[in-house]
Amino acid sequence: MREFDLINNLLKPLAGKNSQGLADDCAFFNGFCITKDVLVADVHFFPGDEPGKLAQKALRVNLSDLCASGAEPFGFMLGLALPRETEDAWLKAFAKGLKKDIEKFNFQMLGGDTVYHDGAIAISVTAIGKAKKPVKRSGAKIGDNIFVSGSVGGGFLGLMDKLEGVKKSKAISKYELPEPRVDLAKKLASIATAAIDISDGLLADLGHVCKESKVGAEIDSAKIPLFDKQSDLYLQITGGDDYELLFTSKKTSIPGCTKIGKIAKGSVIKLDGKQIEPAGFEHS
Amino acid sequence: MREFDLINNLLKPLAGKNSQGLADDCAFFNGFCITKDVLVADVHFFPGDEPGKLAQKALRVNLSDLCASGAEPFGFMLGLALPRETEDAWLKAFAKGLKKDIEKFNFQMLGGDTVYHDGAIAISVTAIGKAKKPVKRSGAKIGDNIFVSGSVGGGFLGLMDKLEGVKKSKAISKYELPEPRVDLAKKLASIATAAIDISDGLLADLGHVCKESKVGAEIDSAKIPLFDKQSDLYLQITGGDDYELLFTSKKTSIPGCTKIGKIAKGSVIKLDGKQIEPAGFEHS
Repeated sequence: MREFDLINNLLKPLAGKNSQGLADDCAFFNGFCITKDVLVADVHFFPGDEPGKLAQKALRVNLSDLCASGAEPFGFMLGLALPRETEDAWLKAFAKGLKKDIEKFNFQMLGGDTVYHDGAIAISVTAIGKAKKPVKRSGAKIGDNIFVSGSVGGGFLGLMDKLEGVKKSKAISKYELPEPRVDLAKKLASIATAAIDISDGLLADLGHVCKESKVGAEIDSAKIPLFDKQSDLYLQITGGDDYELLFTSKKTSIPGCTKIGKIAKGSVIKLDGKQIEPAGFEHS
Repeated sequence: MREFDLINNLLKPLAGKNSQGLADDCAFFNGFCITKDVLVADVHFFPGDEPGKLAQKALRVNLSDLCASGAEPFGFMLGLALPRETEDAWLKAFAKGLKKDIEKFNFQMLGGDTVYHDGAIAISVTAIGKAKKPVKRSGAKIGDNIFVSGSVGGGFLGLMDKLEGVKKSKAISKYELPEPRVDLAKKLASIATAAIDISDGLLADLGHVCKESKVGAEIDSAKIPLFDKQSDLYLQITGGDDYELLFTSKKTSIPGCTKIGKIAKGSVIKLDGKQIEPAGFEHS
């Protein structure tokens, strides 16, 4: 992904003082945090996906970034680029999906912009959360325990199921309608030293925490709460599209979360004692 | 534009308490205001447009909305959907354009998201400004004077020039690189009762002010500071892509601005004493 590196390298020096050097998914200002995820057809979703679920996913991937900062949902701006031939039924179902999650997450739409064009569906959500004391990627300390919420790998397995033409599976539900960890987010500031959501895959996102915290990590494969214990470990810890939280903490147990290892000296990640590259999933 | 009405009608009831019912281009919260404009190739710009200017325009149309609220630039989130084949030179020029306007307007990039896809260029900017006392569309009172900054119609004439294959003209400069009225914005809160930028065209945007303020307006064609006095009046007051400010005020003269009429009783706009529909320009 040469271009991806290039644009990031070009944009990074332009980042302002509130952006934390783009080290986190959110930027922080005056008790608020802000994040943005762009979703485009054929990359982040299938053009034929149910529009209501698509609307919910667009909100939820952003909510998940707010959660990783320990923020509670405040509001969002919605940008939509839609094909000119978009049908009324599609628009109605999309709005219905938005409404569901606005109510479920006590979120509010602040505004936005809709345009019609000759291209495919693109959805750009900018989400704002409230965080008195934002949790960052950079706070992990040697000896901290590493926790992950829920289960790991379901998002990627769901994507695989969809690509194979499976119509319905538990993994597909996890892929299409991830559950941002808003309840955990509320207590994150008081328990976590660093946090991230594992949308790029557990291993890659643990790598981001280690890099920003300037530490290494040791994790134990047997402890990772895999979505499917019968499926491949490596695929499930590198596949993306999980919206669970990975965080480091002095605590030894946290309800709903699994301790998978410890923060260590150095800069490498060891899985079962052997160094492993923090590879992850890039949407392409 | 059936779909356009439909999606707006569907989204309006979803707007939250800080959105002002989507009456303004900005939403307001805690001394900040926020706006979003999505720009897509072949609708808002030409795919071959110089990338640096395109970056600047994407920032400036959003800055103009902040100005209309009397806000000063704070920061922005940048969403980019780029064709996979985007060349390095394009990316470099785009970043250079961003840098220019970040410096010129004392703006900061807070973060964003870049994705590659099979479609055309789409740029989604969410801009945040600081406004202690935001100016809204809804504050115009009967008897207020109506002012417009700079000149009117240049954006649209520039677009026409480009469509006709003209390579260079003053109007094209105005179309490609509008000048958001940041200096005027600083004093807007103290002088204006209502304000808007005339990106949809003077007549349509005056219509928005009248609708939200529940008033009518009387304007005098001879006083409108047309970009080109030799060109058609109606095209210049209905053509979009101007980023001047239209505002109402108790004052009788304001430097750099032209008084074009008065707010009146009722709900209609009169041009030279004759009722006129507040028609405007829709990107299609």
